Amino acid sequence: MEVSNRYITIKTHVDGAPKESHFELKTAALLLSAESGSNDVIVKNLYVSIDPYQINRMKSQSSSQKAISFSVGITPGEIIDAYGVGKVVASGNPRFEKDDLVVGVITWGEYSVVKEGTILNKLDPMGFPQTYHLGVLGFSGLSAYGGFFEVCKPKKGEKVFVSAASGSVGNLDGQYAKLFGCYVVGCAGSKQKVELLKEKLGFDDAFNYKEETDLKSALKRYFPNGIDIYFDNVGAEMQEAAVANMNAFGRVAVCGVISEYTDAGKRAAPEMLDVVYKRITIRGFLAADFMNVFADFISTTSDHLRTGNMQAVEDITPGLENIPSAFIGLFRGDNIGKKIVKIADE
Amino acid sequence: MEVSNRYITIKTHVDGAPKESHFELKTAALLLSAESGSNDVIVKNLYVSIDPYQINRMKSQSSSQKAISFSVGITPGEIIDAYGVGKVVASGNPRFEKDDLVVGVITWGEYSVVKEGTILNKLDPMGFPQTYHLGVLGFSGLSAYGGFFEVCKPKKGEKVFVSAASGSVGNLDGQYAKLFGCYVVGCAGSKQKVELLKEKLGFDDAFNYKEETDLKSALKRYFPNGIDIYFDNVGAEMQEAAVANMNAFGRVAVCGVISEYTDAGKRAAPEMLDVVYKRITIRGFLAADFMNVFADFISTTSDHLRTGNMQAVEDITPGLENIPSAFIGLFRGDNIGKKIVKIADE
Repeated sequence: MEVSNRYITIKTHVDGAPKESHFELKTAALLLSAESGSNDVIVKNLYVSIDPYQINRMKSQSSSQKAISFSVGITPGEIIDAYGVGKVVASGNPRFEKDDLVVGVITWGEYSVVKEGTILNKLDPMGFPQTYHLGVLGFSGLSAYGGFFEVCKPKKGEKVFVSAASGSVGNLDGQYAKLFGCYVVGCAGSKQKVELLKEKLGFDDAFNYKEETDLKSALKRYFPNGIDIYFDNVGAEMQEAAVANMNAFGRVAVCGVISEYTDAGKRAAPEMLDVVYKRITIRGFLAADFMNVFADFISTTSDHLRTGNMQAVEDITPGLENIPSAFIGLFRGDNIGKKIVKIADE
Repeated sequence: MEVSNRYITIKTHVDGAPKESHFELKTAALLLSAESGSNDVIVKNLYVSIDPYQINRMKSQSSSQKAISFSVGITPGEIIDAYGVGKVVASGNPRFEKDDLVVGVITWGEYSVVKEGTILNKLDPMGFPQTYHLGVLGFSGLSAYGGFFEVCKPKKGEKVFVSAASGSVGNLDGQYAKLFGCYVVGCAGSKQKVELLKEKLGFDDAFNYKEETDLKSALKRYFPNGIDIYFDNVGAEMQEAAVANMNAFGRVAVCGVISEYTDAGKRAAPEMLDVVYKRITIRGFLAADFMNVFADFISTTSDHLRTGNMQAVEDITPGLENIPSAFIGLFRGDNIGKKIVKIADE
């Protein structure tokens, strides 16, 4: 059977903040059967993950595009791959059968042709909503888990600061840190987000960074005894302020720098005198580096979810055509928790 | 016996580049015997170490001054403590006797009164010149050894870049890296220094950074396959250029940032996209953190010196009154190797 597959693409490279005019919805005929002799898997897309890192793939050039296979540049007009959940429609790959639920690299489209060698796995929902496997039990969760435990190497009682703390990774990082026995303060960009952190997610404290004129003083107020761990999702001035307030042997885990993604001139210039004298470590990481702890991550996190010790915060928009606005919204701080677009019902 | 002790101090705090006018030679009466009932050790100073970090102690304020005991601020007019070699003149401390050779925290003066609790140890020259115990076998050596082996965790064959490579720490870092089996390129600020690195110290290559208009391109030329380890002694643009040329899982060991010490507006703003996607670690350290490997450091380094595998590069100026110009010269790149001022003969 042939369908008319609708998908989202970029019209041109996106340098700076993404706008609706950068995107278009295109249509192409797609055969709902695997090409003879191929290992292709044809997937009906159900949910796709909307992640800030995709902006770096959309740029006309970025050093990130050369770094790792999932970060390669996106060519205008072509279909955009993204992590998501789907259902197998047809399979030339003996690992999959029709109607299998799968999670992996699909597309910002209605259907995906998943080639051999692309990450794709059968999905066992484990009693959780399918969307959890894109967020709290997916790469967002793994980023938070690996970034906190493997990169930060926390000790109980340490003081932890999380930026973009109501975002997909930040909220989970703060929850892990609290459950581990740290003191946790998060920052976010609205009153509603700050309340969520304090009232629903158990953060010790939280603040709206937009209400602060001097981030260094703000952090001094929230951490009178200094910061031991900074889980950085934003970069730039916030990183500088955190380093200035850091204790000896402090650690900065750089998960992402969303404030720098859409502004090439924006940079973090942490005071290196602090880095030297306080023996600070600033370390970047990617979730993909932590596949060795994936099993631990899933078992720990699913236990916490079942006992109600952890909350999954999701922000789901329906409709393929809403992917551009959902994506654009990430950079305006529209989302609360994991941003997902629902493409179709099973 | 009472002497008239000459010493160097600062007239005012020094913010920016140090000048002769910031310093003065003062004189004060000093009794060459320990105060009754005290553990004081009276030391005749022979050699003192001239180190860039002292500039941070001379500033009217710097976050470094709160970080660790040896980095506390210097009060104008007061005597300045510094690492050095001396000879005990009188001792109220049972650990020391008259005529003992000692190494530890003495002063930029002719004599020092070393109080209980100050670092001071008997010096066994081990057949080496006394000055080696301030440089290659002292804290410069320990910085290079600990910074390279403990912070960088090198693998044989990795590509190592060293800035200020003819300086007290840089030259030793490069030598350790070569002996360990790495490919090593250094940069320095003169033709003579570059020749020293290549011809005497065994660096694979070296360049004069003052002849380069674009440091990023320069490093691309010297490291066509990327940098695995950057031993940073200078900070600012050089750190940015090194991070831009770094390979995945690269490490930046920040030993010091001399180019930023005298210019508060100068900062390193490494591209955080590189830090994240290439999973780079930027880590500051101090030699004092490596006391646990001190014995290994001494045995390894003294063996290399005896076999001629390592060279000690020293730059010794005679005369207490020349301490200010020796110190000022550090920030102009006047020194080659470890800068020491000889105060007196034994």
